[in-house]
Amino acid sequence: MDLSNDDIRRHVREALAEDLGPGDVTTLATVPETASVAAAVVAREPLVVAGLALAEAAFRELSPDIRIRAETADGRPAAVGACLMRLQGPARPILSAERVALNFLQRLSGVATLTARYVRAVESTGARILDTRKTTPGWRRLEKYAVLCGGGQNHRFGLYDQVLIKDNHLAALQGAAPNPVAAAVRLARQQYPALRVEVEADTLEQVRQAVEAGADVVLLDNMSLGQLREAVALARGRARLEASGGITLETVRPIAETGVDFISVGALTHSARAADIALDFLPDAPAAAEPSRA
Amino acid sequence: MDLSNDDIRRHVREALAEDLGPGDVTTLATVPETASVAAAVVAREPLVVAGLALAEAAFRELSPDIRIRAETADGRPAAVGACLMRLQGPARPILSAERVALNFLQRLSGVATLTARYVRAVESTGARILDTRKTTPGWRRLEKYAVLCGGGQNHRFGLYDQVLIKDNHLAALQGAAPNPVAAAVRLARQQYPALRVEVEADTLEQVRQAVEAGADVVLLDNMSLGQLREAVALARGRARLEASGGITLETVRPIAETGVDFISVGALTHSARAADIALDFLPDAPAAAEPSRA
Amino acid sequence: MDLSNDDIRRHVREALAEDLGPGDVTTLATVPETASVAAAVVAREPLVVAGLALAEAAFRELSPDIRIRAETADGRPAAVGACLMRLQGPARPILSAERVALNFLQRLSGVATLTARYVRAVESTGARILDTRKTTPGWRRLEKYAVLCGGGQNHRFGLYDQVLIKDNHLAALQGAAPNPVAAAVRLARQQYPALRVEVEADTLEQVRQAVEAGADVVLLDNMSLGQLREAVALARGRARLEASGGITLETVRPIAETGVDFISVGALTHSARAADIALDFLPDAPAAAEPSRA
Amino acid sequence: MDLSNDDIRRHVREALAEDLGPGDVTTLATVPETASVAAAVVAREPLVVAGLALAEAAFRELSPDIRIRAETADGRPAAVGACLMRLQGPARPILSAERVALNFLQRLSGVATLTARYVRAVESTGARILDTRKTTPGWRRLEKYAVLCGGGQNHRFGLYDQVLIKDNHLAALQGAAPNPVAAAVRLARQQYPALRVEVEADTLEQVRQAVEAGADVVLLDNMSLGQLREAVALARGRARLEASGGITLETVRPIAETGVDFISVGALTHSARAADIALDFLPDAPAAAEPSRA
Amino acid sequence: MDLSNDDIRRHVREALAEDLGPGDVTTLATVPETASVAAAVVAREPLVVAGLALAEAAFRELSPDIRIRAETADGRPAAVGACLMRLQGPARPILSAERVALNFLQRLSGVATLTARYVRAVESTGARILDTRKTTPGWRRLEKYAVLCGGGQNHRFGLYDQVLIKDNHLAALQGAAPNPVAAAVRLARQQYPALRVEVEADTLEQVRQAVEAGADVVLLDNMSLGQLREAVALARGRARLEASGGITLETVRPIAETGVDFISVGALTHSARAADIALDFLPDAPAAAEPSRA
Amino acid sequence: MDLSNDDIRRHVREALAEDLGPGDVTTLATVPETASVAAAVVAREPLVVAGLALAEAAFRELSPDIRIRAETADGRPAAVGACLMRLQGPARPILSAERVALNFLQRLSGVATLTARYVRAVESTGARILDTRKTTPGWRRLEKYAVLCGGGQNHRFGLYDQVLIKDNHLAALQGAAPNPVAAAVRLARQQYPALRVEVEADTLEQVRQAVEAGADVVLLDNMSLGQLREAVALARGRARLEASGGITLETVRPIAETGVDFISVGALTHSARAADIALDFLPDAPAAAEPSRA
Repeated sequence: MDLSNDDIRRHVREALAEDLGPGDVTTLATVPETASVAAAVVAREPLVVAGLALAEAAFRELSPDIRIRAETADGRPAAVGACLMRLQGPARPILSAERVALNFLQRLSGVATLTARYVRAVESTGARILDTRKTTPGWRRLEKYAVLCGGGQNHRFGLYDQVLIKDNHLAALQGAAPNPVAAAVRLARQQYPALRVEVEADTLEQVRQAVEAGADVVLLDNMSLGQLREAVALARGRARLEASGGITLETVRPIAETGVDFISVGALTHSARAADIALDFLPDAPAAAEPSRA
Repeated sequence: MDLSNDDIRRHVREALAEDLGPGDVTTLATVPETASVAAAVVAREPLVVAGLALAEAAFRELSPDIRIRAETADGRPAAVGACLMRLQGPARPILSAERVALNFLQRLSGVATLTARYVRAVESTGARILDTRKTTPGWRRLEKYAVLCGGGQNHRFGLYDQVLIKDNHLAALQGAAPNPVAAAVRLARQQYPALRVEVEADTLEQVRQAVEAGADVVLLDNMSLGQLREAVALARGRARLEASGGITLETVRPIAETGVDFISVGALTHSARAADIALDFLPDAPAAAEPSRA
Repeated sequence: MDLSNDDIRRHVREALAEDLGPGDVTTLATVPETASVAAAVVAREPLVVAGLALAEAAFRELSPDIRIRAETADGRPAAVGACLMRLQGPARPILSAERVALNFLQRLSGVATLTARYVRAVESTGARILDTRKTTPGWRRLEKYAVLCGGGQNHRFGLYDQVLIKDNHLAALQGAAPNPVAAAVRLARQQYPALRVEVEADTLEQVRQAVEAGADVVLLDNMSLGQLREAVALARGRARLEASGGITLETVRPIAETGVDFISVGALTHSARAADIALDFLPDAPAAAEPSRA
Repeated sequence: MDLSNDDIRRHVREALAEDLGPGDVTTLATVPETASVAAAVVAREPLVVAGLALAEAAFRELSPDIRIRAETADGRPAAVGACLMRLQGPARPILSAERVALNFLQRLSGVATLTARYVRAVESTGARILDTRKTTPGWRRLEKYAVLCGGGQNHRFGLYDQVLIKDNHLAALQGAAPNPVAAAVRLARQQYPALRVEVEADTLEQVRQAVEAGADVVLLDNMSLGQLREAVALARGRARLEASGGITLETVRPIAETGVDFISVGALTHSARAADIALDFLPDAPAAAEPSRA
Repeated sequence: MDLSNDDIRRHVREALAEDLGPGDVTTLATVPETASVAAAVVAREPLVVAGLALAEAAFRELSPDIRIRAETADGRPAAVGACLMRLQGPARPILSAERVALNFLQRLSGVATLTARYVRAVESTGARILDTRKTTPGWRRLEKYAVLCGGGQNHRFGLYDQVLIKDNHLAALQGAAPNPVAAAVRLARQQYPALRVEVEADTLEQVRQAVEAGADVVLLDNMSLGQLREAVALARGRARLEASGGITLETVRPIAETGVDFISVGALTHSARAADIALDFLPDAPAAAEPSRA
Repeated sequence: MDLSNDDIRRHVREALAEDLGPGDVTTLATVPETASVAAAVVAREPLVVAGLALAEAAFRELSPDIRIRAETADGRPAAVGACLMRLQGPARPILSAERVALNFLQRLSGVATLTARYVRAVESTGARILDTRKTTPGWRRLEKYAVLCGGGQNHRFGLYDQVLIKDNHLAALQGAAPNPVAAAVRLARQQYPALRVEVEADTLEQVRQAVEAGADVVLLDNMSLGQLREAVALARGRARLEASGGITLETVRPIAETGVDFISVGALTHSARAADIALDFLPDAPAAAEPSRA
């Protein structure tokens, strides 16, 4: 997965329109049109970088005359004080785009950084960290891209690219079929032969049914470590297993050690806090006397 | 401030398109078109509600035949287990819109709930909790609305509706004017007579300059409690004061007790975690045998 | 898969804007505002119906006062002369929306009808007819929906929901890995554990490599009937097989009888001709004397 | 008529978003970011070219670093094996844009090629081949442009730029005016003095009425060759004549020889099959060992 | 011509978004959610009405609960004090939509009113008043609709629906053809046989050339009354004549009396002043004590 | 305030699409693709320039090959005959963009020129000329930008960036509060502490109430010169005063001399006539013989 030019352009233009509205009144009133600056985007805490292309596009959109140099790349760790990007050019567009650029970078680096902590926590267990569909509406591609930057992997992108049968789907077949899990898997295979089929299981009996019905993956919802181990024993060789439900940085390693293939973590996207990143200015040129009219 | 029909419609349609793409394959394959359900949106932790109109619109967009009844209102607290909204109708659109509806409700209620904790922390001090421009790009109106739901107040909506002179703006005038703060306030008043002017101050000397220059509000950036008290003493009667910078639930009350008018908290929007809210289903009708073709 | 309200609305509004521009001058000049008509959408050749919801939406968009009754459903066959939809109401919007409604219905029914012929040709062989990505740009969901209406099934929706490794992808790994097929499958599994992996094969040796590399599906490109039979013998039980490349109504049955699982046919969407469908009018009310001003 | 930058940009961006969605997973997983290729767009059957600018824009949108050289121009014939366009540059964007570029080129060249066959069939008769409004919704400008490339001419662009009075319009005036054709033409002239007025005629009597009413053009709907000749005799010198209705490559020449001015053919746009065009790759650089992370 | 639902919806939503932004702060702060009002849209000067559907849509968009009754129709004259529309319902949306509704109604009624004055000035001369392409960008359909409401007629809608050959077009052919006017008309006829051809003439010699070249209409640019009369004498029976260039209410009648067919007036759309229309409120219900929270 | 790239791009693209539709038929038919011209945008009356960036963008959008040089800047006066912009390059795109470029420039320069007349009329009185919300829907930023170019200042941008309490807002509080003005100001301050509060007054008693309630600005609606003078005497030192209501170039100076701070004039935007600006062509290259096909 990769951010497309189209996604970057649409997100950045919408964000600038939202923030600038009819114009950046402070900058227009106080900063001369001819003033220029040098500035650096700097990490204020240890983090994993994500979103440089969006930050760069925010500045570019306001002026083609800003020189921009990325000092790192998405997916790389940054220490406190590390410079992520350097800017030099007209002061007005740099000041006006600052907050939008940082808002993208801080939120996406926040997701990448949290993901990287989960990934590190399960290191060498063989389990992989997945995201979920609990993303900010309108931001799914951005946030799933940030999960990749943090070393995680992407679960399905939406309701369209994988079948995931939950208890609410099964409820609809309850009366109609003796084995609803088998019936649901069969219906899904029939209609969508090209898609992977996953089944949610709350009990070991459901795990057994799902494996026998030929599910590609079984989602183990809120199971104890003991149940997870039994599910692994029961399924091995026939379906892959995904642990899910209220997983934290404290619980993720023992879960990974049960032998499940995937651990999906909603918090990666729904509860990451923004990474602390700032733009530091260094005036690089003598300012003109009084600003000319806007 | 209020969410406009236009904002609701645009956000909900974009979110559904993003999640459904070519279609909800699981529901189409396994749930008969004639199946109907009853369901309830339920709080899984204590929270302050925000975003009911978006959740409702998500279900409505997929089917006009769903009966929806809000059981509370935005801005109200909800206890664990409280029902926020009841739904009854065709199972397919309810299942397909579930995640989008919850994603809006969880994120906005998360912002409202965190805001309410800050507001409660400063109760009876006279200080008010403000948000910032550190919002999710594209979501500013939604998140600022959620801050209102939590009892907070909105700082400026963008770069256009208030002048806020920071050190980077002053830097541009450094060489050109003997008193840059006074020069900047004068330029802003001249060009934007209809707008409120705020000046950021890092030192007490800057507070004094800003007050004398006639700033409406002075932003006290990262000051100690002692500095804040001196600033209050220095400014009282002539400008309002806003404390800002790294404020937490632990530090917010002593800051409020210094006598400042406003405390602005970036974390309200950039680092709130999603509130825990779920959709519980109750099948309300016998399901048909096999689903008809999509 | 199902057409979403959002897709229907966007396509219909764009089409009406394109056709009406500043207005339907003929109707405005010659048809009184008070005139009303009854009309029927009628099949002029045997066909399979697809697109009724778009046709209905085109009329609705121009006037809420038209009574519309579908006389059949998408996916059903229609004989020559069969009535697909009845309309009654104001003459102007019915006349103005006629061509747009028919353009949707004719093109999508054309795709469904052609698909149904392929599906019928392979009846009882066990092989399934799939579409491809050779769709009209901007129309992929509509055309893939029409394929479903004709009894076909959908291959991947885009480049995002399935891995399909072709020779051009392998070429990039040629120098770098001793067994490029195995290397490519491994790389894909690693990065996209949730997605199905298909490999294109031009020779039986490539089929063998793909099966051994663990591909879920092998695409047999332009193979002779003899090669197809050998591929089936070689792969059975380990990967599913998809025949592809220049398949026609004449060649599709023998191909299906080789035992392949899927046959993908680009012509379903890139070369279907429009079904012959017309709107017949029956004036149902005495017209007013001279039309009032537009 | 010419394709505007705006049309090209909108169509290409929509098509790429539709096909790439969250990303081209196969290419991202298997093709190193540093790999580069040379490729050629090649005709696999004799055709008339249309849509080069859209194909080029599809590649450009994904990367500014691809060198693109058109080897022919829209409107020119191409033999089997002829190279239409050469590409050189980074492999990933070329692979990811391939299908979208070809989908535009194949569909529009299909329309141009079919048009050219009709144009050639009526050569030296003086009759001109026109398109109709039976176009793919949303694609009218593209398809009408392709008709021009094939040597045809454009009928009206929509309901707005010409008056075309059909029997359904006349029905509304039936009771109210002794000579509905004359009344309709008069009403149209009155309200839209700047527009050309065409009248549809099913009988020679209607042709006579239309000519006497001063119609600029008379549309002869589904008439026999005998009727067409009489219509020409009847109208000559006073109105231009357009033959229409179920015209095929077999029937078009005798129709042209009756002396009509125009022959309009719905099939040009509603039933053209895609021209066979492919992208052939030539790896031009040693590929890197393992692809770096997406 | 008629305003489409799509045009109305897009214009009204854009206008409300522009005016309300994050919300109508005054109304939200001071008007209780439960307050209701009755109000009337009233003419403050004599005018011709245009734009009622846009005004109504502005109120409807903000609340479906407002009862709206049009008291007149577009195209009708209104005396000072005449009520154009009555409203009753919730006070907040009525207050918030007021300015947008009036801005549409005032501007379009201004165009209709000015047009009606020109139309009245040429009464019984046989000449018709046409608009031009000198419209507010983005508003062409709205303004041309208002011209119709005032009794004028529409010239071409854009560069696409009529050929109008001006001196700048002829300049390009100057060296290449002995008679550029004839060459240009022939080229236009050849390429766009379905479109009307108009030629701009600055001198009587050019009028003669245009008529002989078979132009449908000749545009007489900035000619004296004497020249206009000669042009009429020269052309009668063979081409229609349009006077244009700096025409005012003072000069329009003598020009009409020369016998020209059309007089086109740019001022209709580029220099109409807004009609004076206001919204008068009548509180119809006792207001609640203190407004509830927004 | 400044026009953003995004505003310019959206307005220009919409305007070109509206005017060109499927293409500029006249230019395509008569002007050879290889023809080039030089042209100058020239003032035909004395005016103040506004909108050069939009005019330039209109030409650029149609061709990157046009050389464009602005000969003045927005906000500068231009004498009759002054050249505002020079163009050189391909003839087709220059001819096709001409009207759109002029429509922007004429309308915005019209607003700037009218504003400049009001500003000059109040010179040296200390009063400032403000615009209103009576703008063309969709054009508010453009028109407010033109007011700045004319030397005026901007009142609020919409309903969101300032509180303005009118009698209709007060009516809602009439029964509920002994002093509605004071109640309304208090409610507004409470909910929107960051915004400026203005109160409309029809009588001197209301002026007194508004000043005592702490309004930042009092709007004096339709007051006589005598009343205005008394209001100034009454308010001085405590609130700023804005005169409004039916102000003309004749009445504005005496009003300014009463000592009010601001005078708001709706006519600046709702009734400015277009400035007279034209594009003069100078062919700069021998034209090719016959135009090649479009």
